[in-house]
Amino acid sequence: MQIHQIGRQITLTSRLDDLGHLPLKELKTLGGGTAVGMDPIGTKEGDWVFTIANSAARDAAGDKRLLSDLTVSGIIDNWQDIINPDDK
Amino acid sequence: MQIHQIGRQITLTSRLDDLGHLPLKELKTLGGGTAVGMDPIGTKEGDWVFTIANSAARDAAGDKRLLSDLTVSGIIDNWQDIINPDDK
Amino acid sequence: MQIHQIGRQITLTSRLDDLGHLPLKELKTLGGGTAVGMDPIGTKEGDWVFTIANSAARDAAGDKRLLSDLTVSGIIDNWQDIINPDDK
Amino acid sequence: MQIHQIGRQITLTSRLDDLGHLPLKELKTLGGGTAVGMDPIGTKEGDWVFTIANSAARDAAGDKRLLSDLTVSGIIDNWQDIINPDDK
Amino acid sequence: MQIHQIGRQITLTSRLDDLGHLPLKELKTLGGGTAVGMDPIGTKEGDWVFTIANSAARDAAGDKRLLSDLTVSGIIDNWQDIINPDDK
Repeated sequence: MQIHQIGRQITLTSRLDDLGHLPLKELKTLGGGTAVGMDPIGTKEGDWVFTIANSAARDAAGDKRLLSDLTVSGIIDNWQDIINPDDK
Repeated sequence: MQIHQIGRQITLTSRLDDLGHLPLKELKTLGGGTAVGMDPIGTKEGDWVFTIANSAARDAAGDKRLLSDLTVSGIIDNWQDIINPDDK
Repeated sequence: MQIHQIGRQITLTSRLDDLGHLPLKELKTLGGGTAVGMDPIGTKEGDWVFTIANSAARDAAGDKRLLSDLTVSGIIDNWQDIINPDDK
Repeated sequence: MQIHQIGRQITLTSRLDDLGHLPLKELKTLGGGTAVGMDPIGTKEGDWVFTIANSAARDAAGDKRLLSDLTVSGIIDNWQDIINPDDK
Repeated sequence: MQIHQIGRQITLTSRLDDLGHLPLKELKTLGGGTAVGMDPIGTKEGDWVFTIANSAARDAAGDKRLLSDLTVSGIIDNWQDIINPDDK
């Protein structure tokens, strides 16, 4: 799993039906990159979360039919202990 | 999922039958790289899209028999908020 | 499989039910990065471990229903031979 | 999917039976790296191809029992438009 | 698939049962990194091999129940043609 910080919600046109109705969120990686995750738990911008990838991401989204390869799966409480600016 | 910008359509010889008839598009990554995605939604060059990888990519292409490991799954409306030249 | 060093235990709010009750641990990569793994074997901070990713990670967690894409699967005894500061 | 250029054919000892009889080819990545792909379409050194990874790679090889995580799936006709020395 | 050079055998405590009895070997990547692979073919330190990842890795290990995401699948005979110090 990976640690990400929640960014903006993404709005789409030409959205595939099997994406369902869960919000898609911009995710900032620790290395400075950008990914997109499905968010079944209701996070807000700035939250530090952990995400599950690949086949388990579909189950994490709550329904194996949903199309997701990266799903937000929990908000990290003790992120101050882990996201340490000293070792970034 | 990842954010990509649509490039050229790719034309192939010796194409495998199970690739189906959907167009294959060059995808530019935020980090400056290049990938190839199957495009079931009809994008045009320059569109900012999000893509689904791996096993979910086949369902996203509309038919589990189609051979795809990366499928274009939506056009991003608010890309100006997300693709920010300041933090690239 | 990858080699990781165990860091802090991660505490979560809004935890998905199918994560089960196994601890989630911060994992330090050899390249200086950070990941998160499910820990079914009871490691402690500083242990050098090897981890299994993707679909095998769910079986490694002991139950295919558990949501994991990275599972701690063994403590490396001879890490001094392998984690050599000279070639890092 | 990824874009690769075909390199040398790889010859193996201690080859696993389930690799079948398709040739294995060295693949040069756009970023300067090296991978290995199964080649069911008969490419020659120097061809620019696109490759399919992971679970779809096995179907692309023509038989789900074949062991492949990366399969050459088409020769790119218009590679001059896409592999542009200016943006490498 | 990837090309790796065999390093040390890894010895484990707290080994999961479903890892079976095949040796686990340190693998050196062409880029200077380190991974771990299951070795069903009996390689020795210094051999250049190719490895299969993800779901096919379990079949390559000889038994779908074995936990492996990276399995050594053949020794490369003509590595001198491919591992060229000039382009590393």
